[in-house]
Amino acid sequence: MDPSFTAYYVAELPLQSSIRNFLERQRRFQRNLAVVSSGGTTVPLEKHTVRFLDNFSTGRRGAASAEYFLESEYAVVFLYREGSLRPLQRRLAKLVTDPVTVLVSEGHIKEGVASFRVTADAQAALVQYERALKEERVLEVPFCTVYEYAQYLELIASASAVFERNAILYMAAAVSDFYLRFEDFKSHKRTSDSALVLKLSCTPKLLDLLRELWAPQAFVVAFKLETSMETLHERAQLTASRSGAHIMVANLLHERHHRVWILENGRMEEIECPESDTEIEKRIVEAVIASHRCYLDADR
Amino acid sequence: MDPSFTAYYVAELPLQSSIRNFLERQRRFQRNLAVVSSGGTTVPLEKHTVRFLDNFSTGRRGAASAEYFLESEYAVVFLYREGSLRPLQRRLAKLVTDPVTVLVSEGHIKEGVASFRVTADAQAALVQYERALKEERVLEVPFCTVYEYAQYLELIASASAVFERNAILYMAAAVSDFYLRFEDFKSHKRTSDSALVLKLSCTPKLLDLLRELWAPQAFVVAFKLETSMETLHERAQLTASRSGAHIMVANLLHERHHRVWILENGRMEEIECPESDTEIEKRIVEAVIASHRCYLDADR
Repeated sequence: MDPSFTAYYVAELPLQSSIRNFLERQRRFQRNLAVVSSGGTTVPLEKHTVRFLDNFSTGRRGAASAEYFLESEYAVVFLYREGSLRPLQRRLAKLVTDPVTVLVSEGHIKEGVASFRVTADAQAALVQYERALKEERVLEVPFCTVYEYAQYLELIASASAVFERNAILYMAAAVSDFYLRFEDFKSHKRTSDSALVLKLSCTPKLLDLLRELWAPQAFVVAFKLETSMETLHERAQLTASRSGAHIMVANLLHERHHRVWILENGRMEEIECPESDTEIEKRIVEAVIASHRCYLDADR
Repeated sequence: MDPSFTAYYVAELPLQSSIRNFLERQRRFQRNLAVVSSGGTTVPLEKHTVRFLDNFSTGRRGAASAEYFLESEYAVVFLYREGSLRPLQRRLAKLVTDPVTVLVSEGHIKEGVASFRVTADAQAALVQYERALKEERVLEVPFCTVYEYAQYLELIASASAVFERNAILYMAAAVSDFYLRFEDFKSHKRTSDSALVLKLSCTPKLLDLLRELWAPQAFVVAFKLETSMETLHERAQLTASRSGAHIMVANLLHERHHRVWILENGRMEEIECPESDTEIEKRIVEAVIASHRCYLDADR
């Protein structure tokens, strides 16, 4: 990998040993593994970061998908951008986006205890998540920059290589395509008296590294988000054949919650979920798990 | 203002009439007004936004300050970045950052009601905020881009000019110093096959416009965040004399919760709050309100 990219890497990642212990535990229990990446990555422009480039992502797709993998008894490593949605949070709806209004207008506070109504659906999901936590079947790993993301991904993917075909790498994070070479990285905040020219380089193709080096036998699911229908299918197919991802999930920004295309072995299948119907991530994960089973069977 | 900046403006801002009604109401009750801006602004790189530049800001300073203005019976317009901290949220601590863990590990869910403990301090603050909401003394206005921020600020500041000296403009938002000229703004997501060169221009100096055009009599409090002590005081003084802000609050990124300098009429006063002591925003707002009183008295 380009040394002007890896120059950002740290000597030891905060959750390094938790990750190793977690993966060993899952191996002992012979669980299938899903590594779900989620949320956008940042590219800081200064060492003491005031400004940064970011990718738009609420983390909803990754968070919802992680839940459905847990429901299907997979062990899950959830590699997520700090502050983006985590599993179950969207089910708490306004408690996450506006907790003060929930407590002030819809809840009660009395004698140091706050209480408010939750839906039956949210309650059931919380109970299920509690079970996954007790079984130590889920590990949440936060990142912020694209460098932390890449370093964690290499660590997790490499450590999950022992799962051979039993691991799914479900790469839903919105990874920055560009980064600032370490040598152009400024120590302190730039002054704002003159125009700023930023020269950004292409981020190493992490998908290719996954398939070639880090976890060659894992089942890789990649995502392609575009904003125009004209380029969507072509770019999805290009990325699929370049990277060797087993499944590409392609979608348009404005309709990503209702329609996706699943590209597998050159075939393109459309999945559509009208609003208020099933959550589309449920359908995507079902399709992925079905293909993963075929992938496992092909090896027997 | 530069037309390549205002080309991003919309025909009508979502909360335009709510803001006018709110300000008229405060005038009728002869309340003093504090306009508190808070959080970072984004600079989208594409029309269907996938990538954007951002400024690091949790919104903690603005949110805490808004509470202290409310406590001192000011009416408050809280102009905040969507997703950044809002008044009271930091008092709910982990419920905001990690609601699922609070509910699963520390709370109870039974028969569709979730409950958990809150501190006495949080409870008192929530009750007080409820009162401010009932008195219609607080209006929260969300923005995302630097263009929405500037357009809202012009609207709010201009509409608050009738408050004459009774309005404080407390500009705690981390406003992007750079933006992308509208003519360089791309419709769709850029491809990532080659390096990217971004040419960014300087954002119009909104502080100067506040003082010169929009609300010449309002009491203006500006903030200067730097990462190095060497440049902090010099840059704060430069901005103060250029913009004519009545108070500059200067601070370093790493110690911003414990130490600030208040620059007023060429005098620099240090405020320090060791951890676990008073919240520093309480001290800043007290100092600002004391100066605002002098500013009002000078007019009598």
